[in-house]
Amino acid sequence: MRAILMYGAGDVRIENVPDSRIKNSTDALVRITASCICGSDLHPYHSMDPASGPARMGHEFIGIVEEVGADVVTVKKGDLVVSPFAVSDNTCAICEANLQTSCLHHEANFWDGIPDEGGQAEAVRVPLADGTLVKLPVAADSALIPSLLTLSDVLGTGYHAAIAGGVGAGTSVTVIGDGAVGLLGVLSAKRLGAEQIILMGRHQARTDLGREFGATDVVSTRGAEGIAKVRELTGGHGTHVVLEAVGYMSAYEQALGVVRRGGVISRVGVPQYEDAPIGMGSLFRHNIRLAGGPAPVRAYIDELMPDILDGKINPGRVFDATTDLDGVPTGYQEMDDRRSLKVLVTP
Amino acid sequence: MRAILMYGAGDVRIENVPDSRIKNSTDALVRITASCICGSDLHPYHSMDPASGPARMGHEFIGIVEEVGADVVTVKKGDLVVSPFAVSDNTCAICEANLQTSCLHHEANFWDGIPDEGGQAEAVRVPLADGTLVKLPVAADSALIPSLLTLSDVLGTGYHAAIAGGVGAGTSVTVIGDGAVGLLGVLSAKRLGAEQIILMGRHQARTDLGREFGATDVVSTRGAEGIAKVRELTGGHGTHVVLEAVGYMSAYEQALGVVRRGGVISRVGVPQYEDAPIGMGSLFRHNIRLAGGPAPVRAYIDELMPDILDGKINPGRVFDATTDLDGVPTGYQEMDDRRSLKVLVTP
Repeated sequence: MRAILMYGAGDVRIENVPDSRIKNSTDALVRITASCICGSDLHPYHSMDPASGPARMGHEFIGIVEEVGADVVTVKKGDLVVSPFAVSDNTCAICEANLQTSCLHHEANFWDGIPDEGGQAEAVRVPLADGTLVKLPVAADSALIPSLLTLSDVLGTGYHAAIAGGVGAGTSVTVIGDGAVGLLGVLSAKRLGAEQIILMGRHQARTDLGREFGATDVVSTRGAEGIAKVRELTGGHGTHVVLEAVGYMSAYEQALGVVRRGGVISRVGVPQYEDAPIGMGSLFRHNIRLAGGPAPVRAYIDELMPDILDGKINPGRVFDATTDLDGVPTGYQEMDDRRSLKVLVTP
Repeated sequence: MRAILMYGAGDVRIENVPDSRIKNSTDALVRITASCICGSDLHPYHSMDPASGPARMGHEFIGIVEEVGADVVTVKKGDLVVSPFAVSDNTCAICEANLQTSCLHHEANFWDGIPDEGGQAEAVRVPLADGTLVKLPVAADSALIPSLLTLSDVLGTGYHAAIAGGVGAGTSVTVIGDGAVGLLGVLSAKRLGAEQIILMGRHQARTDLGREFGATDVVSTRGAEGIAKVRELTGGHGTHVVLEAVGYMSAYEQALGVVRRGGVISRVGVPQYEDAPIGMGSLFRHNIRLAGGPAPVRAYIDELMPDILDGKINPGRVFDATTDLDGVPTGYQEMDDRRSLKVLVTP
């Protein structure tokens, strides 16, 4: 079968690989009908050492179940399913606490951590299929597929940022980052009742979409100037919650600058740093809380899918380009150049 | 009047200073009847540069109102009052959100930040008296004074750690530090319904008191050995909440080692570091949250005082020595040598 491999920074190829097939009785084999490229795929696209490659890519997909192992009971051949970006049993003590991205099962993993499988491919072996896959009540060619595909990662991740930040009625929120996750953080904050949603981003096509998703204000400047602008918009206080959907230290510092005393910085951008300021000069003095991490999107699918099916939300609007597998290397380049926001892939 | 001054690390003196007196119409003048030495006073006792001194000391006290400014309405001459370790107006938007330690008023401050005033003295000028002082319904010689004095800082600080950590019924908690704040963190976790309370500490007299306050387990080892022991006591998971009542980097690292996936590290020990690990290798990967800061003890006095008056809790047991002002320099040394847990001062 055909699949995408990354050989090193900037080097993405389409190649023939051995067919995915069932290995364990809890596996499912899924024929992929829609997948995509993630903003987080750009991190290795910038920095991957060729010595650690080649790596299979892609962690968001919808597909049709082709075969299931003997112990799989929740999905069957022919079902259209969506997969979270992490595999989990959905039954352990940590999953029961709705943190499926930290599942204790020995097969639990992010797709990016599973060798020889990936979502940017024709098919995929899904471990722990009962815990991982969720059946979709539409056909593979439904117009809702782009929005349903965001349940794999970016919608659930934006929603997790808002939930982990404690966004609710009357909350003021700053969203740092106008990528797909940031924009869906805006949508999520709106859905949860936030009163003021300030989107920090510099690309007008994206911030315009952010306004449609619910942003009340857009701040296009960064650094001290951006911080001053957010403070001006909030009576000097900053916002109760900051959703940090980037992952760079500069974004964390921006968050420190715009959060209100006693507020929360909720991070879902994968940190590209390990150490950062958290002492008296940053978090501690004013009881600023830090929350977030890899989103347990599995926990949110049941809650968010009805809103998509009912047309209440349309998160699929983050896709502004579609390609087949052959076009994926170009898709990486276009996302990296910020010519595309998010690329849908139809194998 | 007489007051305690710190001239530099290890150099604490009792001296005559100008009498405290009313300056503003919102001030009160309080004749101190009980104060104490705080674990946080030991930080400058270890490190204070003589060039920055001498500094007035003490931020916890009970006393009798001797005079009030023209605009003070909530306390009057003759009232016995307790003061939080921070002065606040208790009316601004941040105080209304119960974060009085981050009050926006220009006179708001920690006692440690107010020159020429301090709790280790015969008297003190209290700015923003209406927002700061709380009247006590007992006499100055009541047997409850030691417990009521803990409302100034250590009880409210331990309670804040537990509240900020989200401790509730069924929660498992690790408390790092067997000082007064750690022990009252144990008491607070118990009061809030925690199921398992593991106290990490090496001084048996203190951990014995911790058991009386509600600790279900005591771990007297540190580092990898201590972490392994906590994991053993929690089925391998670690605890939902960790109360970090020390402030050193080693305590933060200990907290990272014993917190459960998805759990909270709640810090009330003043961090003796600015940068610390918070990335994928520490907080982020498993959605560990970070909370805490200087405790808004003013917010907790109304809630906790009735329990003291009713004899339901006896936090004053953290005092294991009493002295007058002349004995304060020795008191610092005894606390630093860990011969005393906490020293009560009766001017």
